[in-house]
Amino acid sequence: MDAQQRNTEREGLPVNFGLLIFPTFQALDAFGPIDILYLLSLDFPMNLSIIARILEPVSTRSLDPSLNPLKSNFGQSVVPTHTFTDAPPLDVLIIPGGFGLLADDLDPMYDFVRRTYPSLKYLMTVCNGSWVTARAGILDGRRATSNKHGWLMTKEVVGPKVNWVAHARWVVDGNIWTSSGASAGMDCALAFVEQVYGKEEAKKIAVEMEYERHEDPSWDPFAELYNLPKDEA
Amino acid sequence: MDAQQRNTEREGLPVNFGLLIFPTFQALDAFGPIDILYLLSLDFPMNLSIIARILEPVSTRSLDPSLNPLKSNFGQSVVPTHTFTDAPPLDVLIIPGGFGLLADDLDPMYDFVRRTYPSLKYLMTVCNGSWVTARAGILDGRRATSNKHGWLMTKEVVGPKVNWVAHARWVVDGNIWTSSGASAGMDCALAFVEQVYGKEEAKKIAVEMEYERHEDPSWDPFAELYNLPKDEA
Repeated sequence: MDAQQRNTEREGLPVNFGLLIFPTFQALDAFGPIDILYLLSLDFPMNLSIIARILEPVSTRSLDPSLNPLKSNFGQSVVPTHTFTDAPPLDVLIIPGGFGLLADDLDPMYDFVRRTYPSLKYLMTVCNGSWVTARAGILDGRRATSNKHGWLMTKEVVGPKVNWVAHARWVVDGNIWTSSGASAGMDCALAFVEQVYGKEEAKKIAVEMEYERHEDPSWDPFAELYNLPKDEA
Repeated sequence: MDAQQRNTEREGLPVNFGLLIFPTFQALDAFGPIDILYLLSLDFPMNLSIIARILEPVSTRSLDPSLNPLKSNFGQSVVPTHTFTDAPPLDVLIIPGGFGLLADDLDPMYDFVRRTYPSLKYLMTVCNGSWVTARAGILDGRRATSNKHGWLMTKEVVGPKVNWVAHARWVVDGNIWTSSGASAGMDCALAFVEQVYGKEEAKKIAVEMEYERHEDPSWDPFAELYNLPKDEA
């Protein structure tokens, strides 16, 4: 394949990716998928914007004493490149989860997702990052999944109008990819790479990372561990 | 168990963790294990220091044009809390890998690891993070592993005096835990949690992350994919 063909084939592929972060986001939710996309970015031209409310570094550390009873000082801070008001046009937005989504001052983030979604090619959430999408109102009537640990809250409080799928490693509805808890984001991201960039690319990245993928989106032993009810057909 | 008992049981457990970072470190190498340890830190008192040469944010972005031919601008910057000269006393040091270890100006980092190691309880490397330990001279004569992609360079150039084990998800030799490529760091970290903090704690964390662990350190289909030779008995 010559360069001309490659460039033609690349037309329409996503180029501009955004990662949304907020205080006490979960590191693996973000950096599992992002590391997969980083390896992809060595083969395809891609940009990543790190988007937060303000440009101050955002820490994964848990400040809530009820969640961090021993007052561990354990986390790392990531530097945003853009805020909700100056983020560039995006093709793909990735939203991690984390205990930080229990906070009640996140309306500006929901607003950002609500107004950004219509121009996205794809949106991906990991773990309870689905909450952000649900609260932005763009999951209503769609099929989606989330982490198992917080399932009841997800289903009954956060997104009562969403068709939540309990037994799923990840769910695709239109251009919205939602995945289960933390590590499921890696399987979801590799499935996304496979669909958009091809099976060989996804396989190459998984081998480079020495990651044994789950390729079946209905694989979910954790739903059973948490005794979640069967999904309606 | 009352608080007194818990405190007694906790005596001697590691408290002060350090993550070493350098330009173009691999995100999953660092934040797979660190996210596992973060969940641990909600159950045990722990601190994390992020240690780099200087306090400027450190990016995972690949700047080397031979590794990033399409000039993708894809990465994120993490804020160090300490430098090689003011890092606090540590119980555990974690060293990720990454393309950045191909740089030739990393002597201050090797010096830091060489002088820090004697006072550590444990040292853990992920992927070619093993190179840092090998170059610091503290792997000589020990059993260790590294990622499969760079195996020949690891064995023949970086650490000719190390007893490299090709077929291994992770290897423990004394207090040095080395793991294979990227995602292997998560299995290594969970095995570390199991050994030091107990089987139930490791299981709890894996379920919270919805991560299907590999619990057998000799599980390594990637060594076969890369056609690495059998290890000598």
